[in-house]
Amino acid sequence: MADTKTTTPLPAFRRLETPTEAEAALRQGGLRWGGVAELSYKEDETTPFRAVTRQVLFQSPELAGEWRYFEVAPGGYSTLERHEHAHGVMILSGRGRALVGDAVRAVAPFDLVAIPGWTWHQFRADQDAPLGFLCLVNVIRDKPVLPDAADLANLRRNPEIAAFLGLSQQ
Amino acid sequence: MADTKTTTPLPAFRRLETPTEAEAALRQGGLRWGGVAELSYKEDETTPFRAVTRQVLFQSPELAGEWRYFEVAPGGYSTLERHEHAHGVMILSGRGRALVGDAVRAVAPFDLVAIPGWTWHQFRADQDAPLGFLCLVNVIRDKPVLPDAADLANLRRNPEIAAFLGLSQQ
Repeated sequence: MADTKTTTPLPAFRRLETPTEAEAALRQGGLRWGGVAELSYKEDETTPFRAVTRQVLFQSPELAGEWRYFEVAPGGYSTLERHEHAHGVMILSGRGRALVGDAVRAVAPFDLVAIPGWTWHQFRADQDAPLGFLCLVNVIRDKPVLPDAADLANLRRNPEIAAFLGLSQQ
Repeated sequence: MADTKTTTPLPAFRRLETPTEAEAALRQGGLRWGGVAELSYKEDETTPFRAVTRQVLFQSPELAGEWRYFEVAPGGYSTLERHEHAHGVMILSGRGRALVGDAVRAVAPFDLVAIPGWTWHQFRADQDAPLGFLCLVNVIRDKPVLPDAADLANLRRNPEIAAFLGLSQQ
């Protein structure tokens, strides 16, 4: 997932461009902000994610952190990965599950998820709901590492993680 | 408002400790996370803020940004200030108005507010609703500057800003 860097100043005020009521957005997702590009990724059977969009909400030369909103469609999942840099996450819409290290949890709006460096993590939307979350990350950061076959075998030794990963290759 | 630095690792998962439904929280505020200290500030007639609490959601040696949640009670307001560092803000609950530079706007959940460096800014809750917002800021930052009498007079020359500031000294 390549980054698109922008250096134009952000407008002072931006709003959801959809007429969705905020209350409905908590359940249904579909959050799209006016003036924010929505990035989605081309998928094939080799891609390690499924049905994920990304909106970069705050990215500027003045900020050492970037603040993004990811939305995973029902049944979709983010990339299972780890890296040196950390994430701060707040769930904002829908329902799903998160893997952080060896812990799997059901997550819902306003839950906070802290992902330390070098910790395997993945977010999965429920089958019948999207999962939207805010993610804070350092501007200066290393590239994510994907699990190799040995990593996956090791992760799947934990029955809870095996159930979480299901049939997907990642 | 002095910072409380913490170096203990964050729990992977934290939740709202109140039984408030997420939908209700969008209107009524009252968001309090388990394991997160809620800081409020002693007020007297000289303090430049009113009825503000702060919760630091993410602050760790691994993150170059801090992620905080502020909640302003009905009729309250944050400090009118400016500084070299920038803020990225997302409104999360309630209703209010925001001043950024020479712009005043009504704000509601999921609105994004970008505050560039050296820009006067203040958040005011409506009289009948709280105003809760997430705020991203660099860990390494300068101290806020308060307006002096000349700054205030200059700001109040704009009728919209004068109405926004109302009778408060700040």
